[in-house]
Amino acid sequence: MELGQVPLLFSRLPMFPFFDVAHYLASVMALKEQPGAVEVSRQSPIACWFSAMLYCFGGSILSSLMLAEPPVGFLANSTNIFLASSVWYLVFFCPHDIIYRCFSFLPLRLMIAGMKEVTRTWKITAGVAHANSHYKNAWLIMVAVGWARGAGGGLISNFEQLVRGVWKPESNELLKMSYPVKVALVGAVLFTLQHAQNLPIARHNLMFFYTTFLVVTKVTMMLTQSAVSPFAPFESVLGCMLFGWQQTPSKVKAE
Amino acid sequence: MELGQVPLLFSRLPMFPFFDVAHYLASVMALKEQPGAVEVSRQSPIACWFSAMLYCFGGSILSSLMLAEPPVGFLANSTNIFLASSVWYLVFFCPHDIIYRCFSFLPLRLMIAGMKEVTRTWKITAGVAHANSHYKNAWLIMVAVGWARGAGGGLISNFEQLVRGVWKPESNELLKMSYPVKVALVGAVLFTLQHAQNLPIARHNLMFFYTTFLVVTKVTMMLTQSAVSPFAPFESVLGCMLFGWQQTPSKVKAE
Amino acid sequence: MELGQVPLLFSRLPMFPFFDVAHYLASVMALKEQPGAVEVSRQSPIACWFSAMLYCFGGSILSSLMLAEPPVGFLANSTNIFLASSVWYLVFFCPHDIIYRCFSFLPLRLMIAGMKEVTRTWKITAGVAHANSHYKNAWLIMVAVGWARGAGGGLISNFEQLVRGVWKPESNELLKMSYPVKVALVGAVLFTLQHAQNLPIARHNLMFFYTTFLVVTKVTMMLTQSAVSPFAPFESVLGCMLFGWQQTPSKVKAE
Repeated sequence: MELGQVPLLFSRLPMFPFFDVAHYLASVMALKEQPGAVEVSRQSPIACWFSAMLYCFGGSILSSLMLAEPPVGFLANSTNIFLASSVWYLVFFCPHDIIYRCFSFLPLRLMIAGMKEVTRTWKITAGVAHANSHYKNAWLIMVAVGWARGAGGGLISNFEQLVRGVWKPESNELLKMSYPVKVALVGAVLFTLQHAQNLPIARHNLMFFYTTFLVVTKVTMMLTQSAVSPFAPFESVLGCMLFGWQQTPSKVKAE
Repeated sequence: MELGQVPLLFSRLPMFPFFDVAHYLASVMALKEQPGAVEVSRQSPIACWFSAMLYCFGGSILSSLMLAEPPVGFLANSTNIFLASSVWYLVFFCPHDIIYRCFSFLPLRLMIAGMKEVTRTWKITAGVAHANSHYKNAWLIMVAVGWARGAGGGLISNFEQLVRGVWKPESNELLKMSYPVKVALVGAVLFTLQHAQNLPIARHNLMFFYTTFLVVTKVTMMLTQSAVSPFAPFESVLGCMLFGWQQTPSKVKAE
Repeated sequence: MELGQVPLLFSRLPMFPFFDVAHYLASVMALKEQPGAVEVSRQSPIACWFSAMLYCFGGSILSSLMLAEPPVGFLANSTNIFLASSVWYLVFFCPHDIIYRCFSFLPLRLMIAGMKEVTRTWKITAGVAHANSHYKNAWLIMVAVGWARGAGGGLISNFEQLVRGVWKPESNELLKMSYPVKVALVGAVLFTLQHAQNLPIARHNLMFFYTTFLVVTKVTMMLTQSAVSPFAPFESVLGCMLFGWQQTPSKVKAE
């Protein structure tokens, strides 16, 4: 009885303010660890702030672009902007770097990372529902928007880097998917299927199990320092099944 | 009588499914012949698929961006996406590369190319009409949108390449127009003039003659392997008339 | 009495046609002075024309993108497009470069530059009001849109350069703000505050004084050939107050 209600109660968990702040903290700290980010913060705080906003709100910006809604819309939510900006300010400009240092302390870092993963689920479901409100049952669009929301800034990293004066055309998140982008894609597909009643599972249960999976994998990956994604085996199998004849064209080219 | 009706019947020709498939085939094969495309298809099928979609639906994506409509709208048409994706899959991953090889056979290739050119006319007229539905008689916008639809992915090639990790800023379709982009611009101008009743010709006749011109030039260019556009003389004349004093500024600079 | 009415009458000054033309002239001449621009104008007039339009209408294009309005909307105003295009044509292709030369004559140049600055005020106020009509009292969006309109093409310079085949990722207007971009930002903030009744000054007075400031500083900077912005002291003070502990993180990094 009690146990059965956990997912339902969990799915009603409000993201604001604690989980949102955790998301901002994790994002801004990730930005600060980018090579050259600290120099940029000293050279041009505005570029650095804009870059941080792209890290924090990249998902909603990208999804609004996809659905032809004002990409500046996220600025209308003053409270979240204020929170994200304060986090950015404290992480980058706090005297003696106190904030950054204390949240680099592993236990705290793990907690922050875990909470950030929770927000991911909420973003994906929101994205799928939002896309569905625009295009009834256009499942490809639901997947795309859910993915964009969940993967956040990852998919626009090239342009986020451009703000900081960095340009790496040879690499992008589609060419070499990072784990968060992959797992967000999987999540978007799952929640779209669930939304179209193609999955024999209730929405709150799926949210619960998907989030648990996200948090557990994230934490284990941080503890084991390993970069191998849990999907690797599935990917290789899928790759063999679908794209297994890839060597042929290369041979053809070689001839 | 019969002959007079040919253009009218022609203008009622449905593009779906055969001409659309021909367009997808020609586009995806053009993508596969890009340097590095096959490697990308093996390294990251998703990036390759996305690139293929930009080749197939680039025109509609660009025109939706221009008119502030959801650029993901094209994903709502599941049937066409499914067709384009299967074509992409077969061209890139078919065992022993059968599909690609058989459609590289010149007669087939000519047929495909010809049918693709037919779709161009339909795209341009659709674009012009669509723009007119947004901005009554804003002929510049009608030309721009018609051109974007007709020239398809060409105009966004820089960003399509970026998806594949290629970045060639020194060249773009505005700096060095390829023949299809030029002919699409001419077509957009013609159909806009026709739409504004400034041309003494019926719409279906213009469609018929413009398409014939497209197909004939395309086929002859493929057969003669020549890259000289039929517009070259007009261009040089126009260039002399309008921009003929260009040497002056350069001299000025030289001084 | 008379003197008191000056700002009010000034705020009713119509921008069309003289001030607009001055803006186009200044913008296109700035484009022509870009390295390689003249070569582009000879190689591909269309790319050059498009680049000139981005210089002249960059602000409205950027703000429409921000508010999800058709970025091609500016093409609907045929008269202004025609004016801007003629200016572009005369500046780039006039025999013996007469137009460019005569407007390079300092007094004329100063007048043009002054008039261009006047249009900046009108653009910022229009942008702020426009944003407010979309998002009631979302002051961050009002600042952003006002800034985008006022700073014009500056903020999209990277992509304007891309049209001409130039790509300088290491520098952008956020990383290294030029004076016009800075002053547009200040103006956007001021007019937003005024719009929210947080400034004890009437709109037309603010317009009058801000414009005077713009024109005076611009003219003096042109006469003294100095690139030091009048904001430099404020910036350094602000920088010390807000970001004064910047050395700390760098030291931390250094350790």
